[in-house]
Amino acid sequence: MSQTRGKFISLEGGEGAGKSTLLAGLRACIEARGVDLLLTREPGGTALGEAVRGIVLDPALRGMAAETELLLMFASRAQLVRELIEPALAAGRWVLCDRFTDASYAYQGGGRGQPVERIQALEQWATGGLAPDITLLLDLPVATGRARAAGRGEADRIEVEADAFFERVRAAYRARAAAQPQRFRVIDASHSPDDVLRAAEQAIAALFEAAP
Amino acid sequence: MSQTRGKFISLEGGEGAGKSTLLAGLRACIEARGVDLLLTREPGGTALGEAVRGIVLDPALRGMAAETELLLMFASRAQLVRELIEPALAAGRWVLCDRFTDASYAYQGGGRGQPVERIQALEQWATGGLAPDITLLLDLPVATGRARAAGRGEADRIEVEADAFFERVRAAYRARAAAQPQRFRVIDASHSPDDVLRAAEQAIAALFEAAP
Repeated sequence: MSQTRGKFISLEGGEGAGKSTLLAGLRACIEARGVDLLLTREPGGTALGEAVRGIVLDPALRGMAAETELLLMFASRAQLVRELIEPALAAGRWVLCDRFTDASYAYQGGGRGQPVERIQALEQWATGGLAPDITLLLDLPVATGRARAAGRGEADRIEVEADAFFERVRAAYRARAAAQPQRFRVIDASHSPDDVLRAAEQAIAALFEAAP
Repeated sequence: MSQTRGKFISLEGGEGAGKSTLLAGLRACIEARGVDLLLTREPGGTALGEAVRGIVLDPALRGMAAETELLLMFASRAQLVRELIEPALAAGRWVLCDRFTDASYAYQGGGRGQPVERIQALEQWATGGLAPDITLLLDLPVATGRARAAGRGEADRIEVEADAFFERVRAAYRARAAAQPQRFRVIDASHSPDDVLRAAEQAIAALFEAAP
C-alpha cells in the first residue's frame, strides 16, 4: 500500500524573531488537525547533529573558518535528512524543522561570504536537493531582534557577531524569499505572537487542503 | 625578509601498519637535523578537529551516513590547514601529519563509495588543494594489520568495519600511490620497525637536500 508523502515545513529567521514561540504554536495547530508531526531542528535533531551543534555554537571556538562552519552545518543536515526527515515524510508524517538549508544560504553564504555555487553543490549531494513544501521566514529589523534576544543569557559563537553580519543574513534571507515566492511566506515578525501565529497558520493552510 | 616555505610530509596507512611507531621515529630523525617540526593528526590537530574526531570515531554513532562522515573529515581538515598547517609552512616549519586528504580518498572514497569527483571538489575549496611534498604509505595486507591491531582495546566506529571495507581502503591507497609516484613512497610495513623507519628516512632524505 503506497503511503502519501508527508509535508515538510521549515521555519527561518534571525535573532529574536520569535521562532521558538511560533514553533510551539504551529505544532499545536498542526497536531490539532490529527497530523502526526516530527518537530526537529538544525543544526541538531539527531545524536550526531546535536554533537555538531555543540561544536558550531561553542563560544570557545572563535577561530572557526567559514569553510569549516559550512561543512559542519551540512554534516548535521546530511544526517538529519537521512535519519529523520526522509523516513518521516516517506511514512506520511509531517516535518516541522527549526531552520533548514536556507539558513546556510543566509548565514554561511550571506553572513560569512561562502559562494552560492558551493552551497548549491553541497545541497545537491548532501541532502539530495530536498526542499521544504513551505518555508516561513520571520522577518524583523536586526536592531529589533537583537534587542529582544538581549536578555537570554550568554551569547553563542554566532550570536556574538556584529550587526553588519546579521544585516547580511537578513538580506540573504529576503533575497531567497523574493526569488522563490512559491515556497516562501514572509511574515512580519514585529507583530504580536498571536498575529504571527495567525499569519503562519494561514500560510500553511493550503497544505491541509492538499492532504489526504 | 622572505621565509623559505617548510616541507609537508603526510603518513598514511591502514590498521596496525605501525604509523604511531614510525611517527615517533621520524619526528626524532627530523628534529635531530635541527628542523622545527609540527607533528599533528587527522581528524583532529585543532581544538575543533579533536571535537570532530570524537564524533567521527564514536562507536555509538553507527548510523552515520557516508556523506556525513565525508563532510566531518573535511570540516576538521579545513580548520587544520588554516589554523596550523599553512601558518607553520609559511613560517618555514616542517609539518608531519598523521593522515591527510589521501585518507578521505581511501576511507570515504574507496571504503564508503563516495564519488572521487565529490572528494576532489571538497579538496579544492576546503584545503585549497594543498598536497604534501611527500606522502609515506605504510602498506600491509589487511589480515596482518588487523591481527597486529587486535590487542588494542575497544575498537572505534571505523575499526569495527569488516575486512572487505579495509581491502577497499588498501586498494584505493595503492591506486593513488601508483597514480602519483612523484609524491608517494610506498613502504612495506610487514618489515621490522627499524627497517620501516630506515625506509622512511631514505624516502624523505631528498627534502633535507632541498632545504636551505
